[in-house]
Amino acid sequence: MPESETDVLLSRREIEEAHERIRGHAHRTPVLRSSTFDRRFGAELFFKCENFQKVGAFKFRGAFNAVSRLSPEQLERGVTTHSSGNHAQALALAAHIAGTRARIVMPKTAPAVKLAAVRGYGAEVVLCDQTLEAREATVAQVIEETGATLVHPYDHRDIIAGQATAAKELIEDVPSLDLILMPVGGGGLASGTALAAYHFSPDTRVVGVEPKEADDAFRSLETGDRQPPVTPPRTLADGLQTALSDLTFGVLKNHLHSIVTVDEESIVDAMRLIWERMKIVVEPSGAVPFAAVHAGAIDVEGLRVGIILSGGNVDLGKLPWASG
Amino acid sequence: MPESETDVLLSRREIEEAHERIRGHAHRTPVLRSSTFDRRFGAELFFKCENFQKVGAFKFRGAFNAVSRLSPEQLERGVTTHSSGNHAQALALAAHIAGTRARIVMPKTAPAVKLAAVRGYGAEVVLCDQTLEAREATVAQVIEETGATLVHPYDHRDIIAGQATAAKELIEDVPSLDLILMPVGGGGLASGTALAAYHFSPDTRVVGVEPKEADDAFRSLETGDRQPPVTPPRTLADGLQTALSDLTFGVLKNHLHSIVTVDEESIVDAMRLIWERMKIVVEPSGAVPFAAVHAGAIDVEGLRVGIILSGGNVDLGKLPWASG
Repeated sequence: MPESETDVLLSRREIEEAHERIRGHAHRTPVLRSSTFDRRFGAELFFKCENFQKVGAFKFRGAFNAVSRLSPEQLERGVTTHSSGNHAQALALAAHIAGTRARIVMPKTAPAVKLAAVRGYGAEVVLCDQTLEAREATVAQVIEETGATLVHPYDHRDIIAGQATAAKELIEDVPSLDLILMPVGGGGLASGTALAAYHFSPDTRVVGVEPKEADDAFRSLETGDRQPPVTPPRTLADGLQTALSDLTFGVLKNHLHSIVTVDEESIVDAMRLIWERMKIVVEPSGAVPFAAVHAGAIDVEGLRVGIILSGGNVDLGKLPWASG
Repeated sequence: MPESETDVLLSRREIEEAHERIRGHAHRTPVLRSSTFDRRFGAELFFKCENFQKVGAFKFRGAFNAVSRLSPEQLERGVTTHSSGNHAQALALAAHIAGTRARIVMPKTAPAVKLAAVRGYGAEVVLCDQTLEAREATVAQVIEETGATLVHPYDHRDIIAGQATAAKELIEDVPSLDLILMPVGGGGLASGTALAAYHFSPDTRVVGVEPKEADDAFRSLETGDRQPPVTPPRTLADGLQTALSDLTFGVLKNHLHSIVTVDEESIVDAMRLIWERMKIVVEPSGAVPFAAVHAGAIDVEGLRVGIILSGGNVDLGKLPWASG
């Protein structure tokens, strides 16, 4: 825990301001419950449904907050990022709403449906080779040519402040939570959630959940040294393959209670169980926190537990279980 | 339209009483919207999410209302029905809550997962051959042996009154609807919806939607004579293969504006679109009303349209599109 307010990345007021900025643009997503799950796990589970958020994931909160903070000059020149995931669509839509131009660097190998989605929100897609080096070089070139502002998916105060609003809403809607669980990828959502709890519900424990096959954040906290991402990616939770940045690692060291890990089978089981019982579509990354409950990686008995279902973007033609 | 109140199957008060009976037992399900769909169809669409209802379908409303009206003597002897669909689970759970015994007659060929679901709610499953004759004979035998009360899935005033509460809630939550769409199978939901609109929102047009491959209700209204079910079943909307009863045909003749039909491809497209865009799981039957909008079978431009998503019980291992 931080020793003084100066150790805290974001103030209470900064998160409140982010929340005011996104109001009317981002959805205040519902909190759903399942009496079946409550009985089965002997707990009260509260699911914050960011799969119902604009673009189908919490990422829109951070992207919209970040774009809202740009100056008129920056808006004139546009924004850019490299992403083939939910942040790409989130930034594309946020830029569209703000009336600025987004240039999204995506690998040539990205599925056509993802390219189409980003273009559908009015952004320009800049294709590059698949390597991280090629992506970064292409973004650098876009910035040099256009003066666009880079909006990083998580290594960014305004992004973290935006992501924090999901937990802020959950805390407002569900008082006296004992525990909040969310997935850990690059650490933007985890940092925002931990900071929201610190300011708005300090007695709530915040625990991150990570796939065993992408456990860099778990190992970073264990060793005290930031670990590189697991390569090549081995988890089907494709939103969680990224590694922490210095910024998010610093927040998680100070504010996160712990991280637990779950195996791939547990993620698929949890995802399918959510679809079957709750009748909602979550992506593998979004099912990761519930997998920790389902697999017994964390003890929730008798507790009031908030679970952030981070997103619902999944290729329905490629489900991680046999069909047909 | 009926010429006098004596033509109306259920009074306003009867629907209100059904609503009071199920309160605290059935969920008051949410009404969801999609800005993407609203833009695409130039309409305001309000989705009443009965896929989130207990047992995953509106059927729990009618079953619970019917069971609540039984006398102590009837409760002593239990209830029975034949169904391999959502009504089976609904009656099983309603009986369990009411502390009475349910004996559900199901064909030997029913999927193991459906038998397990009914038993999971505490009901006894009585297996029989697959023909309608065998099912009816087995139910008759159960009644003779046990004195159980038959709770028919739709040919039953209390069932219709229970199903009417879904539209009643929709009308309360969304004033001034121009149109309500719901699927038509045996006509229980359709009758309840039409009667709810008649009493609580008389300016709202109620239109039924039926698969082209199971269009007995459409042809019944066209010809004025009740038509038999299409056999063998040809639609993947397995909840809509049943035919109207005299009771439901009478209500629909008096109170339904019209029925439109949709082909199988439109049903699959609509179902997939709801999953992809709204991030919720609906079964083929539940997607049928939206299929009419999506396929242009009904003109909704400029209208406020309520759409009843009737259920979300689908075998995730057998989706009607290619996967893997």
